[in-house]
Amino acid sequence: MKVQFANRMGNLQASVIREILKFTADPSVISFAAGNPAPEAFPVEAISQISADILKNNPIGALQYSISEGYTPLRENIKKVMLSQEEIVKEYDDLIVVSGAQQGIELSCKVLCNPGDTIICENPSFIGSLNAFKSYEVNLVGVEIEEGGISLTALEQALQQHQHVKFIYLIPNFQNPSGTTMSLEKRKAVLQLAEQYDVMIVEDNPYGELRFAGEHIPSIKSLDTTGRVIYCGSFSKVLSPGLRVGFVVAVKEFLQKIVVCKQCSDVHSNIFAQMICNEFLQTCDYRQHIAKLKEIYRHKCGLMLSEIEKQFHNKITYTRPEGGLFIWCTLPEGVDMMSFYSTAVQNKVAVVPGSAFLPSDDYQTQSFRLNYSTPTDENIIKGIEILGQLSHTL
Amino acid sequence: MKVQFANRMGNLQASVIREILKFTADPSVISFAAGNPAPEAFPVEAISQISADILKNNPIGALQYSISEGYTPLRENIKKVMLSQEEIVKEYDDLIVVSGAQQGIELSCKVLCNPGDTIICENPSFIGSLNAFKSYEVNLVGVEIEEGGISLTALEQALQQHQHVKFIYLIPNFQNPSGTTMSLEKRKAVLQLAEQYDVMIVEDNPYGELRFAGEHIPSIKSLDTTGRVIYCGSFSKVLSPGLRVGFVVAVKEFLQKIVVCKQCSDVHSNIFAQMICNEFLQTCDYRQHIAKLKEIYRHKCGLMLSEIEKQFHNKITYTRPEGGLFIWCTLPEGVDMMSFYSTAVQNKVAVVPGSAFLPSDDYQTQSFRLNYSTPTDENIIKGIEILGQLSHTL
Repeated sequence: MKVQFANRMGNLQASVIREILKFTADPSVISFAAGNPAPEAFPVEAISQISADILKNNPIGALQYSISEGYTPLRENIKKVMLSQEEIVKEYDDLIVVSGAQQGIELSCKVLCNPGDTIICENPSFIGSLNAFKSYEVNLVGVEIEEGGISLTALEQALQQHQHVKFIYLIPNFQNPSGTTMSLEKRKAVLQLAEQYDVMIVEDNPYGELRFAGEHIPSIKSLDTTGRVIYCGSFSKVLSPGLRVGFVVAVKEFLQKIVVCKQCSDVHSNIFAQMICNEFLQTCDYRQHIAKLKEIYRHKCGLMLSEIEKQFHNKITYTRPEGGLFIWCTLPEGVDMMSFYSTAVQNKVAVVPGSAFLPSDDYQTQSFRLNYSTPTDENIIKGIEILGQLSHTL
Repeated sequence: MKVQFANRMGNLQASVIREILKFTADPSVISFAAGNPAPEAFPVEAISQISADILKNNPIGALQYSISEGYTPLRENIKKVMLSQEEIVKEYDDLIVVSGAQQGIELSCKVLCNPGDTIICENPSFIGSLNAFKSYEVNLVGVEIEEGGISLTALEQALQQHQHVKFIYLIPNFQNPSGTTMSLEKRKAVLQLAEQYDVMIVEDNPYGELRFAGEHIPSIKSLDTTGRVIYCGSFSKVLSPGLRVGFVVAVKEFLQKIVVCKQCSDVHSNIFAQMICNEFLQTCDYRQHIAKLKEIYRHKCGLMLSEIEKQFHNKITYTRPEGGLFIWCTLPEGVDMMSFYSTAVQNKVAVVPGSAFLPSDDYQTQSFRLNYSTPTDENIIKGIEILGQLSHTL
């Protein structure tokens, strides 16, 4: 039979990145395309010990159905350990566990947006979130990123021009893909604009802990006093993405709706994984672990940047991230980015073409994304050399 | 600020059952309300050993990002071990892993249904699926269940009366909540009606393996030759619900769309859990394990039925399931089911009022659901005695 799909499927395509990742399964390909934590960043010993203990001491708890809001001790420990350095969870807030921040972002859209409503995002932005938004047939408006984050002038214009703006989606720290961090001034100004135009903010902060240079900047959530910021966090970059554990902090009224939708989606997140995350926060030195991760990424980012400096044609510009996993490179005007990408692939180096991160086909880019967390040092050197050679043939 | 929710949230409420389950956290309450596997049904030893082995031999594989379609060896072993007894996966089909059958059901609706489209389901039916459907603003039409499953006359009427019917949602084996099993004749006839009216079927089969009486009846999927059946299976009732691993078998074209939506939803299912399921299928005797589960549930169902026979007022009718987890009891006409339910709760016995399983407020019921898999034998006897006393005061 011929399957009749719903209208919402019209704009949706498989993630370009996840398609590229299939290609990079070829071991002869050097991949700068992923967003994976470094293999050496996983606390394998600790997780093995914790898993064994859980299955010894509370096996039925780890294998049985659980509640949709998440494992209660984990919800407490996320507040106490992960979110201890800022006032993220306000007295009017609650915190629930979701299956990766991705689920928090998707369900925020499901709970808030009718088809045709507007979501404003940074341009470029995280492909996973953009696709989730598109799956609810929203009007996705991208606002350019400048030095220190989103352009406030362009943001205010977007707020003025578009009706039914439900929220502004932002990744303030080491943004994916651009690597830029939003300044404190911009965070305050964005919050003020959100208040003025009475819209919500979804603050996605998967990389916040991974700052290896510069000074901490308070989250938008911590600056908010009116309950309009939905904060999404994750264990993916600090412990393990494979476990699929994230969390959402927001006003209780909103989270109740998220929980109803989460019941429809997957009933609850894997409880064994939640218990592993909880025991890690409870029994290991989380801050020491984060310090170790920062060292790993400071080194890898530094190595990639110094190789880029040596190898790339000087007309290619690039960001110098203070944390996170990505460098954003921009080719000179007139150069065809997609053919640079294809040539790179032919030369066995995978990057992600910037077009993957555009809110819609109305936008264009000369950029591509490099990831430094996944490849080995050796492959960083080798891969940047190959890209460098290509850059001189532009 | 006042949060403005999307229109779709209007019909959605938190699952009544999951609310009841919070109440049953009180240890003095005997709960017949859950749908949890018996604690003694978990192969704890095997899972402990398997988990330790995975984290020893392939820790990065278990903790890193993975592909949205699911762990390839698991996809193969589900076909080879779990689905070996029938031709479920046709040559035009594929099988992907999802975060519990719940996710397969929800995404099937997301991929197929526009707001206002019709889904036909059994009345009563599984609350989790009904809520998932409602979250996409579909028109939910319930068709009564009679001896041997769904009423064919009423089903054909529904197919005639409603436009834009996208699929028929069915739980043919030991239906939740009614405990009834659809006869082979009905399965064939339903498939024929689906062909005649060119609609799809979503076949939800979480309990199929748990047949402890009567003869196996082929799944609707195995009878289908035109690719119109979407088959959802799960590890929840045969291994562990806490791990949240299920699967969907359907035509490739359809599964590609499901994968795109799954990327938006949770990127991929917990890969450690997928590897645990895979190793269980690969290294343990799955059929022997299932035989053990059948023994447990045959005993518990038998015990509850014999106690009901002794204790309940003879005007209460009830189903005699051949498998699964539930008995469906119906009060005599004129008795207020909700006040029976409330009195039971006051007497510290939790059941689920049948109203939780109705497709909409347009339907009514005199029934309530009993679960025999979760309570201990002692509590089955004690709880049924209490309900029996109440039944004589009707």
